Amino acid sequence: MGRMLLQAAANYPVETFLMENDPDAPAAHLCHHFSKGDITCYEDVYHFGKSLDAITIEIESVNIEALEKLESEGVKIYPKPAALKVIKNKIHQKKFYEHHQIPTSSFVITESLDALRTHAGFLPAVHKLASGGYDGRGVQVIKSKEDFDKGFDAPAVLEKKVNIRQEISMLVAVSNTGETALYPAIDMVFDPNLNLLSHQLSPAELPEKILWKAEAISLNVVKKLESPGLFAVEMFADMEGNVLVNEIAPRVHNSGHHTIEANYCSQFDMLWRIMLDYPLGNTESILSSALVNIIGETGYTGQPVYEGLQDVLAMDNVFVHIYGKTQTKPGRKMGHITILSNERQDLLHKANKIKHCLKVISDKK
Amino acid sequence: MGRMLLQAAANYPVETFLMENDPDAPAAHLCHHFSKGDITCYEDVYHFGKSLDAITIEIESVNIEALEKLESEGVKIYPKPAALKVIKNKIHQKKFYEHHQIPTSSFVITESLDALRTHAGFLPAVHKLASGGYDGRGVQVIKSKEDFDKGFDAPAVLEKKVNIRQEISMLVAVSNTGETALYPAIDMVFDPNLNLLSHQLSPAELPEKILWKAEAISLNVVKKLESPGLFAVEMFADMEGNVLVNEIAPRVHNSGHHTIEANYCSQFDMLWRIMLDYPLGNTESILSSALVNIIGETGYTGQPVYEGLQDVLAMDNVFVHIYGKTQTKPGRKMGHITILSNERQDLLHKANKIKHCLKVISDKK
Repeated sequence: MGRMLLQAAANYPVETFLMENDPDAPAAHLCHHFSKGDITCYEDVYHFGKSLDAITIEIESVNIEALEKLESEGVKIYPKPAALKVIKNKIHQKKFYEHHQIPTSSFVITESLDALRTHAGFLPAVHKLASGGYDGRGVQVIKSKEDFDKGFDAPAVLEKKVNIRQEISMLVAVSNTGETALYPAIDMVFDPNLNLLSHQLSPAELPEKILWKAEAISLNVVKKLESPGLFAVEMFADMEGNVLVNEIAPRVHNSGHHTIEANYCSQFDMLWRIMLDYPLGNTESILSSALVNIIGETGYTGQPVYEGLQDVLAMDNVFVHIYGKTQTKPGRKMGHITILSNERQDLLHKANKIKHCLKVISDKK
Repeated sequence: MGRMLLQAAANYPVETFLMENDPDAPAAHLCHHFSKGDITCYEDVYHFGKSLDAITIEIESVNIEALEKLESEGVKIYPKPAALKVIKNKIHQKKFYEHHQIPTSSFVITESLDALRTHAGFLPAVHKLASGGYDGRGVQVIKSKEDFDKGFDAPAVLEKKVNIRQEISMLVAVSNTGETALYPAIDMVFDPNLNLLSHQLSPAELPEKILWKAEAISLNVVKKLESPGLFAVEMFADMEGNVLVNEIAPRVHNSGHHTIEANYCSQFDMLWRIMLDYPLGNTESILSSALVNIIGETGYTGQPVYEGLQDVLAMDNVFVHIYGKTQTKPGRKMGHITILSNERQDLLHKANKIKHCLKVISDKK
């Protein structure tokens, strides 16, 4: 995220500062000033931020107390720490939806594994750790009582399983003055066998009613957060025609990476416009797009080798983004590929081909 | 140039090294490893390059002897030093065209101001310094004998003035294996009053015959250079329907900056593909585009202030690139703006609007 945000920064007169614990992080060499530091540590975050004009985040786990202190001293934080606080904790997030009557799957809060076991009647459901989850970690599907052992013995949310017809993501930009801009909907297509994101398509092909609901809900929920910034609202459309908010990311998001090439204003450009107090950009699509993530192959850990990259680069209208991570791990996001075409079949054909020919392996098994 | 090249590098698994004399240069913070050094100095260039796999340049004035030495030791140089040698010196360049029967304006070589004065019969003409010219410097229009004093008392080329109908630029990519790819033609529109580039349009609207000639000539001349790399061929179309090569840039070029947004594969992406031995990208336009350079206003020198930037950013489908130079000077290229639209009138209207509202001034007069 940081890497792509800094690629976009180089179009504007802005001096960039980055804090990361790893000096070899993919974004570390693309800023004006790099600081080594732990984003979860109050002292590190406060010390890093106190002389800056504005701060944004690429992951939710940043120390909020430090951000609050910085905000109180006049540093602009995107998103506001109060909004981040709501989102960072899945229990707060669910209560926030409930409070603001935002449609979301029904849920119960479980403080422990014992508490979880009392909700057999609520199954099938999904158990989500209140805080600390990321990229699929901290989430367990609890189909029946037999799965209770997979649950978390810590504060968590048990969400009623939704009969999902389609997963949708909407990107919403909010300026300092509260102006908003909505990107075209993104269709998150899951692989039913692997239960993993297969690819994304944007603009999503949705029944009009579903699209309207998704747009209205995502605008509404983001406005309720009362914070400028760039937000991704992930939603489920169920078999009954309901649209339910799954979760919000208060930052540039994987589901918006296609906007780099496919939309007039990318999500990264948009976040800079917000932070620099520029007018919001045009969110329209230039062409339709598909996006395929480049994921570390199972069984390989170590220095990455991108097998099949030449074949992918030989395909027309395909844009490769490799994040420059020094280590691949099974399931790790190592990059993404965007395909542009107004022919749906062309998008799907190429997405499929890419998934089959590109593998991130490593010298060591 | 370096800045945009490094923005594009961040999509690929490549470690970047940059040498520049100014540690605050616009590209200095976007590479993995920055070295301070003088590109015209043999020792600096050789020392910088000797442990690298490949080198490219953003300006022709790099020390060629050092590049030749590096090439002999196995470092890949884009373009090859032999090609750079031809291009760097305007006398060599003209002789090269002559030798390969590439159409170009007729010329005489003048070694001194006294020699220049013997060519009154050749006027009106343009006097170009053999080496050291850049961005309009080192070029003088000699309309009549009265202008001889403006000429150069050093080796130079006196080129017969062409009755220009249109100026065209073509970008040509050449891979390590000699494969070529041609971008759509670029129309360089000059302001007849200021005698300065007003804006660019691509794809250029040209009579088919002119376009064919321009394509054939640019491919031919670049092939004759026998070097992989990214080349810009600047040509004149005259009133008689001839197409004449004006000059070649053996590198990413200002006339190709629109390709970042307007073409599937940008000139910067293309140069990385060439250097990394990837397949050449798709040079097709996604949408038509106009490009306006952001030029330092006359009368202002110092820290730049971008007056009217908010108004430009409020326009749809307009992409701002500010290079982050720390000082503005009269006539200095401080950035560029690309406009996308398939409506010619929309492109021209916005280009005009931008030229009138955006000014690079400075606190100090």
